[in-house]
Parts: sequence; C-alpha cells; structure tokens
Amino acid sequence: MPSGKLQLPIALDAMGGDNAPSCVLHGASQALIRHPGSKFLIFGNRYILEPLLHAIPNLKAASEIVHTEAVIAGDDKPSIAVRRGRNSSMWLAIESVKEGRACAIVSAGNTGALMAMSKLILRTLPGISRPAIAALFPTLRGECVVLDLGANVESDAQDLLKFAIMGDGFARAVLGLSRPRIGLLNVGSEDLKGRDNVKEARQLIESSGLDLNFYGFIEGNDIAEGTVDVVVTDGFTGNVALKTAEGVARLIRTYLRDAFANSFSAKIGGLLASAALGTVRNKLDDRQRNGAMFLGLNGIAVKSHGGADAFGFCNAISVAVELVAHHINERITQEIKLSTPPPIPGTQLDAIEGEAD
Amino acid sequence: MPSGKLQLPIALDAMGGDNAPSCVLHGASQALIRHPGSKFLIFGNRYILEPLLHAIPNLKAASEIVHTEAVIAGDDKPSIAVRRGRNSSMWLAIESVKEGRACAIVSAGNTGALMAMSKLILRTLPGISRPAIAALFPTLRGECVVLDLGANVESDAQDLLKFAIMGDGFARAVLGLSRPRIGLLNVGSEDLKGRDNVKEARQLIESSGLDLNFYGFIEGNDIAEGTVDVVVTDGFTGNVALKTAEGVARLIRTYLRDAFANSFSAKIGGLLASAALGTVRNKLDDRQRNGAMFLGLNGIAVKSHGGADAFGFCNAISVAVELVAHHINERITQEIKLSTPPPIPGTQLDAIEGEAD
Repeated sequence: MPSGKLQLPIALDAMGGDNAPSCVLHGASQALIRHPGSKFLIFGNRYILEPLLHAIPNLKAASEIVHTEAVIAGDDKPSIAVRRGRNSSMWLAIESVKEGRACAIVSAGNTGALMAMSKLILRTLPGISRPAIAALFPTLRGECVVLDLGANVESDAQDLLKFAIMGDGFARAVLGLSRPRIGLLNVGSEDLKGRDNVKEARQLIESSGLDLNFYGFIEGNDIAEGTVDVVVTDGFTGNVALKTAEGVARLIRTYLRDAFANSFSAKIGGLLASAALGTVRNKLDDRQRNGAMFLGLNGIAVKSHGGADAFGFCNAISVAVELVAHHINERITQEIKLSTPPPIPGTQLDAIEGEAD
Repeated sequence: MPSGKLQLPIALDAMGGDNAPSCVLHGASQALIRHPGSKFLIFGNRYILEPLLHAIPNLKAASEIVHTEAVIAGDDKPSIAVRRGRNSSMWLAIESVKEGRACAIVSAGNTGALMAMSKLILRTLPGISRPAIAALFPTLRGECVVLDLGANVESDAQDLLKFAIMGDGFARAVLGLSRPRIGLLNVGSEDLKGRDNVKEARQLIESSGLDLNFYGFIEGNDIAEGTVDVVVTDGFTGNVALKTAEGVARLIRTYLRDAFANSFSAKIGGLLASAALGTVRNKLDDRQRNGAMFLGLNGIAVKSHGGADAFGFCNAISVAVELVAHHINERITQEIKLSTPPPIPGTQLDAIEGEAD
C-alpha cells in the first residue's frame, strides 16, 4: 500500500494541546496536501470546530466531526482522566481506532492520559506487557529512533528486548531502513559494564535468533553521533536523555543568538550567514520530528508535542500515516511471536501476561 | 586559607592519560602561574620525566619526582589494575594522599582503575558507602554540578541524599555559592511521578533537617537551563545525560561548521562573526570544566579527562586546589553526621557500614 492512501480515516483529538483546536485543523489541512486522499474523523466540540472548518475547505471536504463537549485538561491526572473522561474527545478518538472506524489516532493532549487511555482501550499487542514511547532524534548521519521515552520508569531485560523489536519496526516504517542497527544504551561499551537488566537484555537479544541487526552497547554520545538507528533504553533514562538533549540544543541556540547580537561585525556576519544559520535551525527544529508513537499497543496512537504548531501537528499525522502504511503492528506481532518461546505448562510467560491483560 | 596557598603538595599521576606525561607537566606549569606557591609530587618514570622537566623551570623548582616504572594502561580492568598495579604511578600517587604527603591527587588515567584504587586506599568518609563522580555542566545561568556521573550504576534513596550533601559541598567550594539550589533528576516535576528511589530520596532530603536549599524534582532540560546548581541522580542516568549532552554539542558544532563552509557569503559571515563564534566555542569548551571529583572519599581525588591537553589538565588541578582550600571533606563529614540518626543497637546503619568498610 503506498503511503498516503489509507483505507480508513485518521482520528484526531481536536481539543488536546496548547494550540487546539486551530493547529490541529490547520495541521490536518497541510497533511491532506502531503497525503492526498486521506480522511479524518475529528473529535471535539462542533460549535467550536464547524466555524473553523468552514475556513479550511480542503479539510472540510475530507473530514467528519464527532461531537463531544468533554475535554481532558493538560494537567489532569491520568487515573482521573481515565475514570471521568469517557466522553472526552481523546477517549472517543482512541475508541474509534479500537472499533475499526479509524486507522490511527493523533493527539497533542495530556501524554499520561493518552497513554493510560490507549492502554485501556486498545490493549497491548500479544506478547507485550509494556508499551513504549518512541520518537526520532537528529544525528550526524540523519535520524535515529529512541525508545522508551517515558512510558515506563523501570524496564527489565524482556521489556528491553521487546523495545528492540518495536524500535526495529518503527525505524523500518518511519526511516525506511531495511536493516536498522540497534544499540542498547549503557554506561560503557565493554561487556561487563552497566546495569544487570541491560547486560541481561544484551544476551537475550543476541540469543533471540531474530533477524535483528544488533550493534551491542552504546553510550550517550552515540545517540547524536548516529552510531545506531535504534536506541533502546528504559523510559527513565530515555526521558532524561531526550530532555537533556533538548536543553543543550536550547542552550547553544541562546549562546549563538547572544553572540551574533553582541557586536556590529557579528551582526553583519550573522546576516551574511543567515541562510547557513537557517539550515542549522531547520536541522534542530523539533517540529520536523514531531510525533511520538506509542508502540506495542493494538492500534496506532501518535502523540504530538503539546506546543506543536500546524506544521508540527502535520508531521505527527505523517508519522501515523507511515506507521499505518507500513503495517508496523503486524510486523511487531510477527517478530514477538518468533522471539517468544512456546508456553511451557506451569511457567509464567510474558506472552500469557500480555494476552490476558 | 586563600585558595592557591596549600600546605601540602598535590600528587600528580604523570603517566595517565592520552597525552601523558607532557600535558600533565605543562598543565602543572600553568597551574603554578594560576596558584603561586603550589608544590607537586610527580609520580612516574624519572628517565622520561627529568628531561621534560628540565625544559619547564618553574615546575622543576616546585616539584619532586617519585620514580616508578609501572603504569596503569587506559584499558586495564579496574579489578586487575588494583591487584597488579601497586607499584604504578597511579597507586603511589593516591597512597601519598593517604599518608599525608600530598593534599590531593590528580590523574588523567583510567577512570575505573582510579576509582577502584581510590576507594581501596583512601576509603570512604564516615557515613558514606558509595562515592560519586561529580563534574560541572554549562547552563544558561553559568554552571551546575551534576553527580553521580558513573561511579555507581544503581543508587538507593540514601545514596541520593548523600549525593545531595556532597554536591552541595562541591558547589560551595568550586562554584563559590553560599546556598546552592539542589534538584533531584526525575521524569516529571509532579510529586507522584518517577522511580521509587527518587521519590523516597525527595522525602529523605526534605525531612533531613539539613540546611540544604532543596528545589525538588527537575527534568533533563532543567540541567542546561540552570534551574538548579546541583543536579542529583544515579550514576547510570547521570552518565547517559552527560554523554548525550556532549554528543548534542558536537552535533551542533558540526552543523555550524558545515553551514559556514557551505557558501561564499556564509564563509565571509563566519569570518566577520568569528569573535562571536569563538565566544560560543569557549563556552562549550570541555576543557574549561575539566576535572571530575571523586566525592565521598577520605581524600581528594580529581580525574582529568583522558584526552585533556595542558590547559585542560591545569583546570583539573585548579579543581583540586579549590576543593582542598575549601575543606570540602570536613564540610561533607559534618553534614553527613547531622543527617545520620544516632546508631540504634541491632539496626544496620549506613554510617556503620561506611566506617567498617
């Protein structure tokens, strides 16, 4: 199936995110140009959405509004959102994927609530007990996938093996790689270094018999160096690494801005080099890589950054389109099956836990 | 005691590091200009060192060579280095601190071996079972201290409390702050988020009754933003965060270099802005912040980056000078005593473990 030609519409939580619903709608309008023939189910308040849609004819023609007045706030606790949010745009949008009325859901709303609802409504794929959040990171060689970015604060070796399988699928779908190199984030590249779960995961991956292009241990600096295409780590470490990187990028941007504003010759130099600096700014533009996927769920859920603008939200929709077009979940399910030993009576297997969940 | 006027010499492992012994000696020579009156005990092969020292008269006049032929290699395993390296420049330099012949040791050699030997020879301070590696990180507001950077791969809440106390002492000594703000690295700033050890550490710090300026939880992006002066985390997360940040800084430097080389106008712009770009380069210069301290040991041990040049090694010596001058270990011991409940018979306390170790 060529990407951009989806059989089902994409469900949009129109009310989630700092700039909702305007950026959601304008982002979808841009996505229609990029992926002609797409359709959207837009969940939100029709009295707010209809006047806006009126001004975006291409989207109006390709979408349907599903009315709801309830909205999950950015600071709602996930546990409360799950209990009280059953009429919210977020819940109903996810449910439309579960019910086969949409092929994916995209939301810029509350991450914790989106994850909790997605787990509850979509359930995990067979053999997976913990979903992961995956996203792209810029590198010297292009981009890499990093997961988990915070769906879990602890991960055992089995979880890390499954993150490797899920990251592999994501890199094939979104980066178009045929054999993504997979690295396990550690504090040293030697076999003996690091945490027990990471060392055990290395053995599990190496002995899994799966067709994974496994590189071995990597360190923090290898992420931006592009040593591998898929960086596997627990959600605590991944979240800290991603946010530390964002902080450093912002720090350097500030240094540069201040430096170029500091003297007359620097200002002139900055003007002459403005195209070059623009290229750097583009490469560091978070919006280009907007769209964190919740991997391991029985349905495709993509989280846009809460502060995304229309361009950023459009990119999150593109991630959903690629994941659907590349049948990421079929691929992951297949690999997980191959990696999971057949159940032995009396033995508790992850596969059973996952299915019974 | 004014910094720079030390009673005892500083011990230098002249043979450790990629550029040893030349950078060690030239770094010490620079440090003599910065800290007049300092003395050095230089451990290494006198047949290599003497001809070099002959060309550095200020250092020759202020130092004494302690001859040894054994050297710890950069890739020696710590366990083997400890067993076989008792005649090495590293071991003997650390031992001179233990024996009161030097006030601190500085080495650019094998980190794992230096930590293992330092623990074995110097032992930990009373009440501390796990030393930590601390170093400085650039921020929007200046610099912050991050610890642990990899001395431990796991840390419990008690360890994190002690890292907070040690980081507080480091920030007072090296950054000259009277009440450093201390943050605990987590994946969200809300009370309920994160790992159990981190949540428990928060409670321990808040209920410790110590005079700590505790900010609460911070996230990865807060490191470079300078939200706090001391970032407390386990060694696995700290190591990944530091190395990820280094990787991102390198990535952006490469983007900039490529961008400025890309067109004629960008080249001219780069020339006009070269002073401004130089300022940014200086701010990101790792050498400025060279010198990771092994905190929690009964003696001052500073690790220079293995690839440090003379300027970098000089900065590592400066860190040692500041730590000695500010009596960092007396301060930490005092705070640990205040934070440790008096021993209750039959209860195993960290304080006892630390002393019996």
